[in-house]
Amino acid sequence: MKEVLYPSMTLDTNPVPTIGVFDSGFGGLTVLRALIRRLPGAHFAFIGDTARLPYGSKSRRTIARYAAQSARFLVEEQDADFLVIACNTASALALDAIQEAVTQPVLGVIEPGATAARAASQTGDVLVIATDATVHSHAYAAACSAKGLRAIEKACPLLVPLVEEGWTVHPVTAEVIRIYLDELTAEAAREGMRPDTLVLGCTHYPLLRPLIESAVPAGMKVIDSAEAAAEAAVRQFGENVAAWVPESSSGSSSRSGTDAVVRCFATDSVEKFERLGSRFLGRPVGAVELVDLGG
Amino acid sequence: MKEVLYPSMTLDTNPVPTIGVFDSGFGGLTVLRALIRRLPGAHFAFIGDTARLPYGSKSRRTIARYAAQSARFLVEEQDADFLVIACNTASALALDAIQEAVTQPVLGVIEPGATAARAASQTGDVLVIATDATVHSHAYAAACSAKGLRAIEKACPLLVPLVEEGWTVHPVTAEVIRIYLDELTAEAAREGMRPDTLVLGCTHYPLLRPLIESAVPAGMKVIDSAEAAAEAAVRQFGENVAAWVPESSSGSSSRSGTDAVVRCFATDSVEKFERLGSRFLGRPVGAVELVDLGG
Repeated sequence: MKEVLYPSMTLDTNPVPTIGVFDSGFGGLTVLRALIRRLPGAHFAFIGDTARLPYGSKSRRTIARYAAQSARFLVEEQDADFLVIACNTASALALDAIQEAVTQPVLGVIEPGATAARAASQTGDVLVIATDATVHSHAYAAACSAKGLRAIEKACPLLVPLVEEGWTVHPVTAEVIRIYLDELTAEAAREGMRPDTLVLGCTHYPLLRPLIESAVPAGMKVIDSAEAAAEAAVRQFGENVAAWVPESSSGSSSRSGTDAVVRCFATDSVEKFERLGSRFLGRPVGAVELVDLGG
Repeated sequence: MKEVLYPSMTLDTNPVPTIGVFDSGFGGLTVLRALIRRLPGAHFAFIGDTARLPYGSKSRRTIARYAAQSARFLVEEQDADFLVIACNTASALALDAIQEAVTQPVLGVIEPGATAARAASQTGDVLVIATDATVHSHAYAAACSAKGLRAIEKACPLLVPLVEEGWTVHPVTAEVIRIYLDELTAEAAREGMRPDTLVLGCTHYPLLRPLIESAVPAGMKVIDSAEAAAEAAVRQFGENVAAWVPESSSGSSSRSGTDAVVRCFATDSVEKFERLGSRFLGRPVGAVELVDLGG
């Protein structure tokens, strides 16, 4: 925990906690954005392991090793007090390894997404769209099943490249989403399911939310796992947070969060991160610092 | 060079050369396919550095280190007599480093593509489509310029994911190709160019050749850099090859190449390689062997 005192704290003996946020790339900036909105004025350190992305094509053992290195960087070098794993693949395959690598509390994105789906669904039948790696892990299906939900998952590997191409409002993207959702709802119907909730199980997908909401059947709720993870972080870390929320922001949920202290790190060329990151974060990412985590 | 003698060699004192083929992933199997068609009965060792793909997001120094490790594996572990770098990014950024890492001859894919474009173009104006990383390197533009061609390059980052999704004959892919080519030809027109040749500067794109040929203006020639690299390999290594071509295949260019001895290696999970590779290779890839190249 940082020894530097935050100027506008209610208790000046209580240092400002730092929230460490980790992703294999920069998609997790959508989670950081949701965290900043809820915890304005906090300190945030975000690392994207861009040298080794995508994690999705790698083995569980390799992902666990990489993710643990990033987690230790956030704790040891950036004094993070708790960690949010803003990466579905790492949450699915390496949450245990990260929890073993550090003593600080660690929160992934999958459990909060399933919790939000449980709260939203009336029928108990849920659709999940995600990357190939997340779907292959069946982590959402398992988390949903543990809450008494039936979930059917579909890999949508074109959506990340479409977001990164900047085609977030584009007829080709709308058509790809329509095709994927048609296939998914047809499969659900074959299984005799009556899904009323769709979970966005990838940190890139919040940028497609308007197109996705236009494409789902009327009445279907769309769960954004980035928002769900940020809400869970506030619940889980709430006691720590309550003591240091700056007085000026107490009782205010409308703060822009533009005064949040945010440092962004990446493990390889930062150009794409800096160029695309602001779309995900909803504000300029500023200079991204290059770090070497070793092999 | 292997000491094992090939059963149907013309000279049984002359061992069969092994051609080592390297890619960051498995797209380079299109180059291997073109090589097998021209050099049936040869030995081939292919390695895809799937643990560390995509190279495109990595720095030149990192790519050079990774590519040199794969090149040494092919030479030291697989007894390769010459190497074909079936990866545009590595050819663009690391050909020198690979040539320094081994004593065997090394051929990339970019120079052959530019050579084929020079032979095909009447106007001297050439279009190149490739991945983001290859375009950023401007390696095709430089290679074309050295041959007196003017080249204009465009990154088409959606095409690799579309191929890997299996949408090689799909209206969405046709529409994406149309959009990219419209943008590229409009840019060429603004530059006062009259392009008559299109270079496919990515090893995934040969699978899109039918759609691309339907989309280009009438009379425009399409150069497949995988085929161009294989032709260059036969020219460059021709003397070595002539002595050991099996008698049964001499004078025959119609052999299927299904008797070629091919070993495939990958540095991480081989599932996707095995599942998608046969589309690229045009025949089953068989079992892919996992190797660890270290950090």
